[in-house]
Amino acid sequence: MSSSMAELKMVESSAADLTAAVVTVSDSCARGEREDLSGPAVAQLLLKLHFSITVREVVSDDSIQIQNVLIRLAHDVRFVVTTGGTGIAVRDVTPEATTAVCDRLLDGVAERMRSEGSRNTPFALLSRGVCGVRGRALILNLPGSPTGAVESLEAVVHLIPHALELLDGKTEHG
Amino acid sequence: MSSSMAELKMVESSAADLTAAVVTVSDSCARGEREDLSGPAVAQLLLKLHFSITVREVVSDDSIQIQNVLIRLAHDVRFVVTTGGTGIAVRDVTPEATTAVCDRLLDGVAERMRSEGSRNTPFALLSRGVCGVRGRALILNLPGSPTGAVESLEAVVHLIPHALELLDGKTEHG
Amino acid sequence: MSSSMAELKMVESSAADLTAAVVTVSDSCARGEREDLSGPAVAQLLLKLHFSITVREVVSDDSIQIQNVLIRLAHDVRFVVTTGGTGIAVRDVTPEATTAVCDRLLDGVAERMRSEGSRNTPFALLSRGVCGVRGRALILNLPGSPTGAVESLEAVVHLIPHALELLDGKTEHG
Repeated sequence: MSSSMAELKMVESSAADLTAAVVTVSDSCARGEREDLSGPAVAQLLLKLHFSITVREVVSDDSIQIQNVLIRLAHDVRFVVTTGGTGIAVRDVTPEATTAVCDRLLDGVAERMRSEGSRNTPFALLSRGVCGVRGRALILNLPGSPTGAVESLEAVVHLIPHALELLDGKTEHG
Repeated sequence: MSSSMAELKMVESSAADLTAAVVTVSDSCARGEREDLSGPAVAQLLLKLHFSITVREVVSDDSIQIQNVLIRLAHDVRFVVTTGGTGIAVRDVTPEATTAVCDRLLDGVAERMRSEGSRNTPFALLSRGVCGVRGRALILNLPGSPTGAVESLEAVVHLIPHALELLDGKTEHG
Repeated sequence: MSSSMAELKMVESSAADLTAAVVTVSDSCARGEREDLSGPAVAQLLLKLHFSITVREVVSDDSIQIQNVLIRLAHDVRFVVTTGGTGIAVRDVTPEATTAVCDRLLDGVAERMRSEGSRNTPFALLSRGVCGVRGRALILNLPGSPTGAVESLEAVVHLIPHALELLDGKTEHG
């Protein structure tokens, strides 16, 4: 979409500190039984949009492990992106782990990922990924499939630089 | 809509165990003062979509009673559908009762019922119905009016067989 | 939009008691350092739609102060509208304060404000404003900018008279 391209250009022109980390949440990737395709795909898109990726990590579908990684990364970078663990199976716990470490959630970001995603696949509506604020960092959950992760990120990434500026206290209305 | 018809066909071709129960939540229906039109309408649509209805029940707008019915039915069937009690009046407690017995909620399903419903009546936005997972079962809250119940179900029923497969552990991405 | 105009006309023909209060949530307005433009803009729109404004107040971005104002006003009027404090900065606490004093939330109203708002500005998706019920009153959070506040109110105000009737117990389906 041309409007989407225009929105993505907004990312490039931001003055915010666009440090980012990418976390792949997957038991099989963590065990080395499966190649992580989503993490690199997400990182590639972020680099293209002029985010600087400081780290990529792979973690099991374990709530405590996920929380620890998010706490550590949210201290070091402004934008922490996860991929995986957003589904409805019992072992999918990324949204719960993210909610546990966030100060507040931005429901509108999750709503937009789902509604945009459902244009490509109706099952995007089943994704439970959240977006939240922890300190001065944003944490965003993307689905586990490479295509779903990239499409979800594209649907909302234009909001991130402005959101980071707001977290820096750059507001217009008091 | 033709796209809707295509989506409904997806339901028919699913390999999942499509057992379903329909629960009418209504004080007046439970007292026998009003004919239950919504329960039969929902059951008829589910049958047409090749779900097998194992039971239909009528329960008062009482949170504990609703919870007990949902717990029992979610043990026996894969898809428990309620109709009624999703409004904003004090006695409308179906969403709270459902949330209380669910392991996790699928916000995207509720969002879609509201946004699709609002095309027919703006007041669909006031519906508070939720969709959640309890064990291997899905529980879905529909509004109390026959038309609203059927339209809301039609808006999301194509997601159910895939969701049930995911609950069975049939996932592509680990 | 013509459909929007039709919906706004629905407000005018309602039989509900359309008493309203407008609360501006802003540290700088409360200190008198900034002129409150949003409160008057919201009040003007409500008057045009035949709501009777009983009071306008200005309060700091302080959760306890906001809660106390909302509790008091929800006792006196049917529709309490706030403007400001819905963003993602640390001092934005209006949604949390509103949630704390509400019996239940109407997620569909917040969803619609965000999705409609994002047609004008993508950053509307970052708004965390909620709509909730307290007793027989509705409380609605609008963003802090005059334009954002008016646009958000226009997106959902047609739902208010019907919602107030439902809170009065005027339901069709039991």
